[in-house]
Amino acid sequence: MSPQEIENTLRAHLDHLLPHHKIREAYEYATLPGGKLFRPGLVWSILSDLDKDLYQKSVRNIYSPHALLASAVEFHHSYTLLHDDLPCMDDDTIRRGKACTHLVFGQWQALLAGDGLLNLSYQLLAKGNHPRMLELIRFFSWALGPKGLIHGQVLDLSLEMTLNFENTIRTHELKTARLIQVAILGSAILSDTKNVANEKKLWKFSKLLGINFQLIDDLSELATESLSEHEISVNPWLHNPEIAIHSTIKTLSDFNHLSQDLKLTKTNKTVSEYYQKMLSIITLEQATIEKHLNKKIELTPVILLMKNFS
Amino acid sequence: MSPQEIENTLRAHLDHLLPHHKIREAYEYATLPGGKLFRPGLVWSILSDLDKDLYQKSVRNIYSPHALLASAVEFHHSYTLLHDDLPCMDDDTIRRGKACTHLVFGQWQALLAGDGLLNLSYQLLAKGNHPRMLELIRFFSWALGPKGLIHGQVLDLSLEMTLNFENTIRTHELKTARLIQVAILGSAILSDTKNVANEKKLWKFSKLLGINFQLIDDLSELATESLSEHEISVNPWLHNPEIAIHSTIKTLSDFNHLSQDLKLTKTNKTVSEYYQKMLSIITLEQATIEKHLNKKIELTPVILLMKNFS
Repeated sequence: MSPQEIENTLRAHLDHLLPHHKIREAYEYATLPGGKLFRPGLVWSILSDLDKDLYQKSVRNIYSPHALLASAVEFHHSYTLLHDDLPCMDDDTIRRGKACTHLVFGQWQALLAGDGLLNLSYQLLAKGNHPRMLELIRFFSWALGPKGLIHGQVLDLSLEMTLNFENTIRTHELKTARLIQVAILGSAILSDTKNVANEKKLWKFSKLLGINFQLIDDLSELATESLSEHEISVNPWLHNPEIAIHSTIKTLSDFNHLSQDLKLTKTNKTVSEYYQKMLSIITLEQATIEKHLNKKIELTPVILLMKNFS
Repeated sequence: MSPQEIENTLRAHLDHLLPHHKIREAYEYATLPGGKLFRPGLVWSILSDLDKDLYQKSVRNIYSPHALLASAVEFHHSYTLLHDDLPCMDDDTIRRGKACTHLVFGQWQALLAGDGLLNLSYQLLAKGNHPRMLELIRFFSWALGPKGLIHGQVLDLSLEMTLNFENTIRTHELKTARLIQVAILGSAILSDTKNVANEKKLWKFSKLLGINFQLIDDLSELATESLSEHEISVNPWLHNPEIAIHSTIKTLSDFNHLSQDLKLTKTNKTVSEYYQKMLSIITLEQATIEKHLNKKIELTPVILLMKNFS
């Protein structure tokens, strides 16, 4: 499933589920063109690794359970970005290289489009005809609800995530990993293999990947000359660079081993492609990053590990 | 099911599904003590009218499908109020007789508690063990999503609802009636009688009730001396008093007939109790209301109809 095909499905789902009204523009602006589409990409690559036949059948049908899940995780991701960017939250101005939705359409439209996309993610899942769909919605809502992703946002905005590195990792687990876990484990649930041992390993794999994904994202954030006050206060590479590099190396090698063990060839390719993109940002702006880090650590081990990733 | 019992269940569900963290206070402040609990009350009274045995079984179990639906509609309602009150939306200061959540806990906590309650409503439904639960979630998410309740909020905030009376009624249907329809029709779906003719009548009944409920609410809003700018611009009684009174009388008598036809004894009692409360506000402040209405219409027919409501 190419990013273009994933995006076409997002577009078709929006077209079907949004009212014919100019508010559409706010929803579309916030979701299209897609970002890196990492999360829906994982839904498809996990399915391809677990069940090639089902993958072939599912890609052709935009209302297959996996196509619905892929859009649901992406729209859910978009809603969190929309709300995170609002002035009363992170107060951001740029998202995916363009002005934030609330700056173009106004705050109430951004807030309501966020609420709309949140509801839409459940609406898509509920359309899926699959014996384990209710179980998936149970997992989805737990992982992304008040004890999950939203609690990660609470720990972030209250600055509790900066109290110690344990809190940072807990926040990354909730705010970032949970949605990646929903993509990966959700896709496994819908491939209906009901392999509990595998699902346990996928839980661990997706959690490590999610935490590592955020640590690498934090690192790449330092590629910008000027950082916002909030960015400076929560970036673990600035406060605990040694623990940050240690955790990054550890989670990266651990999930790499797990994915070999689980024979996740296609998923490894998706992850690898993403990491090569991040690597090119990091190496291109290595000087800027090192200036922020103030020579406290040596980045080479992380760069080498990312370069040699499976 | 008394309001106190409904509230106890809300409390138990929150206790189970919220993190052990001080953010709990914001969630609880926004939801407890409950307001009029009209919507969860409807879930129970419809069940009681449709299937007394199932009602008896369900009230004793806070994880019965109906108990989950009752809390889900109330938490969903609370999230819409939380977001509606934010400065970038209606910018309100008082809700249910106390300061709005964002004034006590800050805007980001109110926004996230709203997102959390939205997710929580789906999480509760997904816990329900019922063969039609996925169908219910499909209906719930459609009715309350981008083409439903949220589109009603869009029509309200964009002031499109004030363009003509048709738009006003459409907004009331989406913003107010949809959630009441979810309570009523959702309860019928979970009583599993699968009586399509009845479900069609309940659809109409709940839509008329929802629209009338909002028109009466608009009227009671005029019982306050000072109205906000937004209240003045959207209140149909100020702009089209004659059509407002005509629609109120028509919807009130229509849903009353339908509920007789459907033999909704218990539901009629729930609605009647609510209307008597509204009536006491309206008659107590009749002078203030008539001052706002500037003698353009005579309220007596509405008051008589409410007074004699079955």
